[in-house]
Amino acid sequence: MITTAPIIFLESLTNCTTYFSFEKYGKIFILVDENTKEHCWPLLLSNNSAFKNAILIEIQSGEQHKNLSTCEKIWQLLFWHKADRNSLFINLGGGVIGDMGGFIASLYKRGIDFINFPTTLLAMVDATVGGKTGIDFLNFKNGIGLFQQPAHIFIHTGFLKTLSEIEILSGFAEIIKHALISPMPENWQTIKSINEINKISAAELQKIIEQSIKIKSNIVKNDYKETGERKVLNFGHTIGHAIESYALQLNKTIPHGYAIAWGIIAELQLAQQYCNMPNIEINQIEKYIHTNYKNVFNFKFSSEELNIYLENDKKNIDNQISFSLLEKIGKPTYNIYCNEQDVKKAINYLEEIL
Amino acid sequence: MITTAPIIFLESLTNCTTYFSFEKYGKIFILVDENTKEHCWPLLLSNNSAFKNAILIEIQSGEQHKNLSTCEKIWQLLFWHKADRNSLFINLGGGVIGDMGGFIASLYKRGIDFINFPTTLLAMVDATVGGKTGIDFLNFKNGIGLFQQPAHIFIHTGFLKTLSEIEILSGFAEIIKHALISPMPENWQTIKSINEINKISAAELQKIIEQSIKIKSNIVKNDYKETGERKVLNFGHTIGHAIESYALQLNKTIPHGYAIAWGIIAELQLAQQYCNMPNIEINQIEKYIHTNYKNVFNFKFSSEELNIYLENDKKNIDNQISFSLLEKIGKPTYNIYCNEQDVKKAINYLEEIL
Repeated sequence: MITTAPIIFLESLTNCTTYFSFEKYGKIFILVDENTKEHCWPLLLSNNSAFKNAILIEIQSGEQHKNLSTCEKIWQLLFWHKADRNSLFINLGGGVIGDMGGFIASLYKRGIDFINFPTTLLAMVDATVGGKTGIDFLNFKNGIGLFQQPAHIFIHTGFLKTLSEIEILSGFAEIIKHALISPMPENWQTIKSINEINKISAAELQKIIEQSIKIKSNIVKNDYKETGERKVLNFGHTIGHAIESYALQLNKTIPHGYAIAWGIIAELQLAQQYCNMPNIEINQIEKYIHTNYKNVFNFKFSSEELNIYLENDKKNIDNQISFSLLEKIGKPTYNIYCNEQDVKKAINYLEEIL
Repeated sequence: MITTAPIIFLESLTNCTTYFSFEKYGKIFILVDENTKEHCWPLLLSNNSAFKNAILIEIQSGEQHKNLSTCEKIWQLLFWHKADRNSLFINLGGGVIGDMGGFIASLYKRGIDFINFPTTLLAMVDATVGGKTGIDFLNFKNGIGLFQQPAHIFIHTGFLKTLSEIEILSGFAEIIKHALISPMPENWQTIKSINEINKISAAELQKIIEQSIKIKSNIVKNDYKETGERKVLNFGHTIGHAIESYALQLNKTIPHGYAIAWGIIAELQLAQQYCNMPNIEINQIEKYIHTNYKNVFNFKFSSEELNIYLENDKKNIDNQISFSLLEKIGKPTYNIYCNEQDVKKAINYLEEIL
């Protein structure tokens, strides 16, 4: 079983053909949204003759389109174009494109090859690494999906130039999480030393991305199917996903990283209570997140409203809500079952400080 | 990667708990249709206390329900029941239940364990072995799916007692195909010596089932993802599937094995032309099938009407229709690209003799 796909950092997009033989495929399909069609596709096309006959499939951007009904439309198109097992499917976009495109390709005629060109910071450091594909179902984030590695991953940080500040911050939340769970103290030191995330230089960001991918890859490599250790990557995500799922239900969008950033704050309360995480570290992280992540919520939520999503979290076993927490910075832990009242308190704390 | 699941023949259903620890799962879900609910579920339940709290999920029988919309309803139920990664999904039924149930379980929260209790002859000798799961899409048979092994397979031939003659014959078509592609000449000799398939004894059938599963397992083991050798199992299926897909479009049902039996007859014409298969063998097989499989088609089709399905066959590469054929009995071959005119002729021949 392949547990990690080859990841190549591309300074110039022309180079991708050096690392991957696109010419061995009969037809090439490229999944884009209106943003990557405008900003990324022209760059990829003008730099590579391999893509001149590629068939573009465009979807609307946004988490609310990451569902079965979009997949059905795309499968329909693939059948219509007579895509076969010698076709290649390319995901050119952020987390939604990568997760859903991987899901679509893995199931079409029982699976065709796909490769990822992540175009957002979030997709580069998180979604594209680790082989998780999927779609939201009944508002449950990634409720339906499978583990399947892309044939290749190309990271071109040039794509980041067109992103908004919010999108950079959204991706950076996963970088923060990786630094907090990494056993190497210098990772969190590096992050903490950046006062304003949005002022970071391109060169510095590139280095941090490489480091962040390394942290995640190392964890995934040891536990591809998330039966144990990989669960530490879910720090901040149990409550973060519940916030996102609730937002989906209201037809609102919250950038994933913002939900995770606030999820981290709430789960630090549980870490203090269940894992004796030192208060000094909790305050340090909370302050860092608070400074950088201004409140972008345009809706209110209560612990009751998040409950249905917490109860169906993918990590739960036998109706107990399971958390991945920190004993201290650099020492993550998982399978921590928290009492419903304590979870409510943690969410209430979050509501208070927002 | 697991390429074959453990297969156990159960004389008594009580024994299944000896081979598999059902008690380690939190919740058990059992997928049935109206037939297996009536005839098989009571037998399983009365013989095993492990299932007394199991949650039954019932779907309507028939290939026309093997689609995404049925999956959505079942996923919805699983979320509603808060099924988690420690839940077990049991497929109690024929090919539709096994293929679709495996698909549903493999994608729910990125995969939960499932086991198969095939209840039809067809499912026992074919569908349940080899890890193919999937659903029909836009009338394309198994157009969407994935390779995923069940955690266990239990074969209890006692279930066959409730099957109709047509269902036995349908399953037997795959047994015939396995015997024809098997390198051991005694396999086809055994089958050929049975004059009337429907008069076969239970003991004899049991032996043939074991042999047939062995033939398939050996092929699958060497090429799980069907990149080469496994394709020989598709003999009779290129045209057979096109007939079934066309029937689906008309909202009619043809037993799978009947479509395959007639698919074999048509493809023998191509085998003669492209692989020099001896006429004497072709006539022998054709006569055997003709005697045992009376015409159950309640619709007419032409080579033009099958064309769209042939063009989207999963084995095709670069718009060429690919066949798995025989050079002679016991010597299968694959990746044989046949000219459209010749395929038409083979289908016309089939129409003539029906």
